Amino acid sequence: MAEKKYVYAFEEAHGLGKELLGGKGAGLAEMTSIGVPVPEGFTITTEACTLYYESGKAIPEFVQKQIFDAIKGIEKKTGKAFGGDKKPLLVSVRSGARVSMPGMMDTILNLGLNDVTCAALARETNNERFALDSYRRFILMFTNIAKGHPRDAMDKMLDELKEKNGYKLDTEVTTEQLRDLVARYKEYYKKTFGEDFPSDPKVQLMEAVAAVFRSWDNPRANIYRMQYSIPYSWGTAVNVQSMAFGNKGETSGTGVAFSRNAATGEKAISAEYLPNAQGEDVVAGIRTPLHIDELKRRMPYVYAQFEKTIKTMELHYRDMQDMEFTVEEGKLYFLQTRSGKRTPAAALKMACDMVDEGLITEDEAVLRIDPVSFDKLLLPNFDKDELAAAKNRLIAKGNPAGPGAGTGKIAFTAEEAEKRNAAGEKVVLVRAETSPEDLAGMIACQGILTMRGGMTSHAAVVARGMGKCCITGCAAALIDEEKRTLTIDGKVYTDQDVLSLDGSTGSVYVGDIKKVAPDLSSGNFGRLMAWVDERRDLKVRANADTPRDAHQAKVFGAQGIGLCRTEHMFFDKDKIFSFRKMILAETKEERVAALAEIEPLQQKDFEGLFEEMGELSVNVRLLDPPLHEFLPQEEDKIAELAKATGHTVEFINKRIADLHEFNPMMGHRGCRLDVSYPEIAVMQTNAIIKAALAVSKRKGIKIEPEIMIPLTLELRELKFVKAIVTETADKLIKEAGVNMKYHVGTMIEIPRAALLSDELAKEAEFFSFGTNDLTQLTFGFSRDDASKFLPDYYKNKILEEDPFKTLDQAGVGQLIKFSVKNGRATRPNLHIGVCGETGGEPNSIQFYHDAGLDYVSCSPFRVPVARLAAAQAAIRSPRKK
Amino acid sequence: MAEKKYVYAFEEAHGLGKELLGGKGAGLAEMTSIGVPVPEGFTITTEACTLYYESGKAIPEFVQKQIFDAIKGIEKKTGKAFGGDKKPLLVSVRSGARVSMPGMMDTILNLGLNDVTCAALARETNNERFALDSYRRFILMFTNIAKGHPRDAMDKMLDELKEKNGYKLDTEVTTEQLRDLVARYKEYYKKTFGEDFPSDPKVQLMEAVAAVFRSWDNPRANIYRMQYSIPYSWGTAVNVQSMAFGNKGETSGTGVAFSRNAATGEKAISAEYLPNAQGEDVVAGIRTPLHIDELKRRMPYVYAQFEKTIKTMELHYRDMQDMEFTVEEGKLYFLQTRSGKRTPAAALKMACDMVDEGLITEDEAVLRIDPVSFDKLLLPNFDKDELAAAKNRLIAKGNPAGPGAGTGKIAFTAEEAEKRNAAGEKVVLVRAETSPEDLAGMIACQGILTMRGGMTSHAAVVARGMGKCCITGCAAALIDEEKRTLTIDGKVYTDQDVLSLDGSTGSVYVGDIKKVAPDLSSGNFGRLMAWVDERRDLKVRANADTPRDAHQAKVFGAQGIGLCRTEHMFFDKDKIFSFRKMILAETKEERVAALAEIEPLQQKDFEGLFEEMGELSVNVRLLDPPLHEFLPQEEDKIAELAKATGHTVEFINKRIADLHEFNPMMGHRGCRLDVSYPEIAVMQTNAIIKAALAVSKRKGIKIEPEIMIPLTLELRELKFVKAIVTETADKLIKEAGVNMKYHVGTMIEIPRAALLSDELAKEAEFFSFGTNDLTQLTFGFSRDDASKFLPDYYKNKILEEDPFKTLDQAGVGQLIKFSVKNGRATRPNLHIGVCGETGGEPNSIQFYHDAGLDYVSCSPFRVPVARLAAAQAAIRSPRKK
Repeated sequence: MAEKKYVYAFEEAHGLGKELLGGKGAGLAEMTSIGVPVPEGFTITTEACTLYYESGKAIPEFVQKQIFDAIKGIEKKTGKAFGGDKKPLLVSVRSGARVSMPGMMDTILNLGLNDVTCAALARETNNERFALDSYRRFILMFTNIAKGHPRDAMDKMLDELKEKNGYKLDTEVTTEQLRDLVARYKEYYKKTFGEDFPSDPKVQLMEAVAAVFRSWDNPRANIYRMQYSIPYSWGTAVNVQSMAFGNKGETSGTGVAFSRNAATGEKAISAEYLPNAQGEDVVAGIRTPLHIDELKRRMPYVYAQFEKTIKTMELHYRDMQDMEFTVEEGKLYFLQTRSGKRTPAAALKMACDMVDEGLITEDEAVLRIDPVSFDKLLLPNFDKDELAAAKNRLIAKGNPAGPGAGTGKIAFTAEEAEKRNAAGEKVVLVRAETSPEDLAGMIACQGILTMRGGMTSHAAVVARGMGKCCITGCAAALIDEEKRTLTIDGKVYTDQDVLSLDGSTGSVYVGDIKKVAPDLSSGNFGRLMAWVDERRDLKVRANADTPRDAHQAKVFGAQGIGLCRTEHMFFDKDKIFSFRKMILAETKEERVAALAEIEPLQQKDFEGLFEEMGELSVNVRLLDPPLHEFLPQEEDKIAELAKATGHTVEFINKRIADLHEFNPMMGHRGCRLDVSYPEIAVMQTNAIIKAALAVSKRKGIKIEPEIMIPLTLELRELKFVKAIVTETADKLIKEAGVNMKYHVGTMIEIPRAALLSDELAKEAEFFSFGTNDLTQLTFGFSRDDASKFLPDYYKNKILEEDPFKTLDQAGVGQLIKFSVKNGRATRPNLHIGVCGETGGEPNSIQFYHDAGLDYVSCSPFRVPVARLAAAQAAIRSPRKK
Repeated sequence: MAEKKYVYAFEEAHGLGKELLGGKGAGLAEMTSIGVPVPEGFTITTEACTLYYESGKAIPEFVQKQIFDAIKGIEKKTGKAFGGDKKPLLVSVRSGARVSMPGMMDTILNLGLNDVTCAALARETNNERFALDSYRRFILMFTNIAKGHPRDAMDKMLDELKEKNGYKLDTEVTTEQLRDLVARYKEYYKKTFGEDFPSDPKVQLMEAVAAVFRSWDNPRANIYRMQYSIPYSWGTAVNVQSMAFGNKGETSGTGVAFSRNAATGEKAISAEYLPNAQGEDVVAGIRTPLHIDELKRRMPYVYAQFEKTIKTMELHYRDMQDMEFTVEEGKLYFLQTRSGKRTPAAALKMACDMVDEGLITEDEAVLRIDPVSFDKLLLPNFDKDELAAAKNRLIAKGNPAGPGAGTGKIAFTAEEAEKRNAAGEKVVLVRAETSPEDLAGMIACQGILTMRGGMTSHAAVVARGMGKCCITGCAAALIDEEKRTLTIDGKVYTDQDVLSLDGSTGSVYVGDIKKVAPDLSSGNFGRLMAWVDERRDLKVRANADTPRDAHQAKVFGAQGIGLCRTEHMFFDKDKIFSFRKMILAETKEERVAALAEIEPLQQKDFEGLFEEMGELSVNVRLLDPPLHEFLPQEEDKIAELAKATGHTVEFINKRIADLHEFNPMMGHRGCRLDVSYPEIAVMQTNAIIKAALAVSKRKGIKIEPEIMIPLTLELRELKFVKAIVTETADKLIKEAGVNMKYHVGTMIEIPRAALLSDELAKEAEFFSFGTNDLTQLTFGFSRDDASKFLPDYYKNKILEEDPFKTLDQAGVGQLIKFSVKNGRATRPNLHIGVCGETGGEPNSIQFYHDAGLDYVSCSPFRVPVARLAAAQAAIRSPRKK
């Protein structure tokens, strides 16, 4: 029986796909296939990673054998020898997941070095300093990454050495000093682990591969996956590649290149180059790289090849590429390429440009925009005039690494940023440089400012991925972490000072600057949204309770209101008193009288909505929460209410006690209130219909209000409440002598309703899935309480996503599909939407598209995102027309 | 197009079924077909009732026409004329639902009488007194029933007349006085309704038919349906039948007969006869009927025909018959027959006797026992010795109308009985006679004692149906409702006096008498249960948490424990302190230490269960409720706990506040606790497995404990907790060096678990449906809160049954079927049971049988009921073997 293949040389891997090879591995295979100069190497598949975990964190013997065979392959092609005392083969070991997870996964370079190979390398390159420096770096990385030991102590050895000798740069360290350092590193290793540093390259290799596999499960990787909804089950591949050395002297160097500008989208290579260095120096932000012109200046012939290869790759991949390259003694190697992360603004510009260039289709352009960060385009930018006026407050400049505007007080650590943000404070994160450990703080802040690092440093790459404003390499910013101060031009700023960061220009201002909303209808944004709207099947509505929200929704392109929650209206100062009287009423007559006071006010609310929305649909949900939510809790408020209503305090306390519920989420709420107190539904219907009649007459337009009955679970219940609504509405319409239509439907938010959708569709003209409650009941999760145990569920990988944010397709989704199918079986033209929180989440929207819904409804701000996601869904899986 | 037929003459209706004709109508058609003497008539179908409600409570013209055509048919067959001045046709109008609802539905007699027909009847029968008496009764019934007006005022007119003249019996009233009474009744009618009493028989008939239809919806009918789970949608049929007159003098009379004794089951006709009276006098308990020997004595030839016809009918129907008959001037008519209500004890004896007689099969015998009242047989009876010793406390005797033993303080009205019972007091209901309005009080009391009425009075029939102890016709009991006293032999008893009623002998004792449990293994009971156990597919287990419960369950025939709730064990005085320490622990070490204190105690609990159950299955559910349920609420208890644990009061209050949940039902409970605190599952598994190992060794028996993981919703969650359990268990078993099996499975009580059963079955060896929580979540009903709105749901007929008692087949049942199907698709030998409250409810058990479950588990006391219901289900729908 042929053994399963877990290891592929780059030249035999082309076409096997990212799932198996990871993004980096697939890229290397593809680059090899189109003739890009790539160092020889092979990929260990993601299946090997899964196998590693299934084997109890061990690499099975037969996989090890395949790996060593592949090493032999490299030896053959390069004529080098792994562990050899002549022409020693050194390799890099890199992680490579299906999608790029920058900074999350660990890499080991120069693997294969030991005393023998180091000497050989020194001999053969005639550069002992380089050999020793590589050896030193390797021991450090191996200790830190493969063995999981902190690097501080070893870093300190180098720092102290430099300080003692007055060196500024690593390159100033002498060969002798490096030899000594290698010895001290090895000594430290032995002291720490109780064994010699492994000199066998095969042992080194297996430990490194296992370390990459383990790094898939480190806390930072888990945070990143959570943030970006990447399944744990994917695993990572490992790429082993013969080393290319950027640190072999002045004709060597390393760099990172984007085929277009990742921050702005501009069509121009954007690259950085650092002579005589390894790539890690750049990514870690330890040294600030130079502009690519440096390469052009030093080695124009290399630059020409560089430029040509990049163009080839962009044409081949039909997308902006993010590449790492190394020049080893005048020979150019590309180490990896991938579709580059970009700011939302850059993504938009590139997509439009590439359509114009004929590189991609409009469909592809729409698919190129990441809906998750798309709403960043909707964020305000600094007002241009205010920005000009703030010129005198400009205190520093850095690299414009992530566009956007961010204002906040200074936070000096990620933890601090996280805490102060949680406490409601807006902060900007100010760091010498960022590292993967800072991720949570980067998510929590308004913007990032670093002293070190270029356009491709950790901070820059991560911030752009998040669509977060970021300025890197701001050398003027002197940070003292201990004293918690930032000093610029001698002036000292503390954690109480406010900075405004303009990520588009790299300008740092002191104090706040006014921001303005972006223009959404013209330019590339308008162009993209036109393509989007042409393509999508799902309509997009907004959840809006006030004319202000409704207006915002229209600005963002909402095609109606999918959910108006009337309960918010009752908390108005002018209504809450009457509403409380209604709750305290002891007879139906008292209740009706109190409701009569509210009706004209509520009618006014609805008139505002209808005025704003014109002929667009407005879906009003009848009162939903339990009545006790409307009564005061504090003693003084109760006393006040008693006085105002003429009830005794005892009476009100008794009523509050009567209304107490053990599980209010599953209590006397929704249409259950209308079953007990039909007069509430009568009042609300009166207000809705009267408002629609008035506005329709006033503006001479056609309004067809939708009235939605919440929390239904049974046909007879729906019939009962619907009868109240239609009786009330029909009478008003008849009295008005006009021909106004209206629609009565129901929320589907209780599992039983989903299960009995065939029945409910007999009476309901429309369904709207309330995924918040449907998720609560399908999971048996109280949303208010789940935060206590959900962290344990994430930690133990039982759940990977918050089901209240992203629809749980396996469970809740099954109910939704069932409901759509059975509802439409009864009533083929049943109008179906969703108004829960997941209605604005891109993955969920794909599901709703596939499930055949008519619309999604989300918060106004999410409307453009939902439009884009709906178009992408339609492109990915066209509906049968 | 042929018009749909809504009206059938008895002779053309045979075979159309109860659904269409109602029980009474089907019976009359069938009696007619086998030659029983039945007065001519026809049935208006249940479909006409539905049509009546659908037509907005109106009888459509075409139905009216069919009714009048049927009247013409009677006229033709009898030679009488409806409204005729010669040979006037008088009819009865009776309700007849699909199942008998005694006293719930209304009946009108003598319809067709007016001044003209009354005179003709008087003339033709040469009995003016009889004609006027019939006329008087008719006006009274029409006013009371068709028009819904109370009968008090008209009753009072007769009572006053009798009092004034010193009459004791109605029969003493003279013709003249009756004529005057008729005039005064008509006058009262006119005064009350503002119109003349309707003289047109056709108008009378339509009003009467409509009244029967309306009576389907009266409050008493609704209460009865709720009690007996009869769907509202069924509707009632109406039977119109030419009158037979039992009040035509001394050769006339009326009676009720059972073909066997309905109280004891004895094989002997049990009947009562009242000369010169209409049937209503008997049923209403107004006059106490005589023994059937009275008929034999007066008219032996009629009695012979009576006896023979009854035997014919019992043989034909192959069941005990409950019949109404009338003798009109020496001619015998049977007015209706139906399968007779019987006490559980009588049902048991009859079923066994009929098998011995070859009348029915064993299958039929099993089906004859009503599982709903079957548990009455398990109720204690008076201890025979104690009863003998109480001879001196015997204060009165009445008819043994409903067997059983009942002790309680005297309640004089149904409302009082209901209230005092709700307040926790045990009462016996003592009434002059009962009426349908008393139903709720009859349900609430321990036994019923009435002064008037025979074995077939309202109290007797209803009490037997409920399996409630009842003594009727206790003439010595003089009741003063106003003074609220009962006087027997001059001694006065008040609502504080305790009576003991022996319904099997009709004896009334003062004070309490000790009761003993019945013998379940021998006699007819043992015989029936043997048939039952041979037939059923479902095993029956019990929910039991203590050795005492487990013992009781075994006595009742449980085949194992289907649910042991471990949480009850923690409330023990010796465990609660350690458990609270565990909850207050700030580190895992502290938690583990506290749990270690509990483990040996919990092990002892399980040993007790295993000792009791031997080799029968015992299913232990891991801890289920949220932790806050275990902490004290009262200030002094908190202070005590603080002192004992060395924590501050503030600390404990903080912990209580931290643990507070908004919706605890959907909070941090079930296996979510084990995800957060795996050490709890470890401790519980230790206790279970150690106990099983110890008992298994001690008794030399094979024990295979079942460990059940509650509240699962996701495969990875089940895997996580199962891994804790198996790791712990396997280690112990290995250490013990024995070969003990155990099984790990899960509750299915969250909708998502039901939806993902195919997944869960990968890890679960068994499923157990927790219908309590599954119903809560499927409905979105908090069981603790639903009582606030469920009455409105019943009142408005949105729900007809409590879904926590009887499984909601439409919603929850759908999930269960889906889960069974998908679970078994993954694991064909998946063992499936149910342990929610519905596991002991007969209708639900039929569903579980049909759904293919392996067992039901219920409270120990319900085990025999469940065994019976399971056998009935198996007989009704045999499983494919």
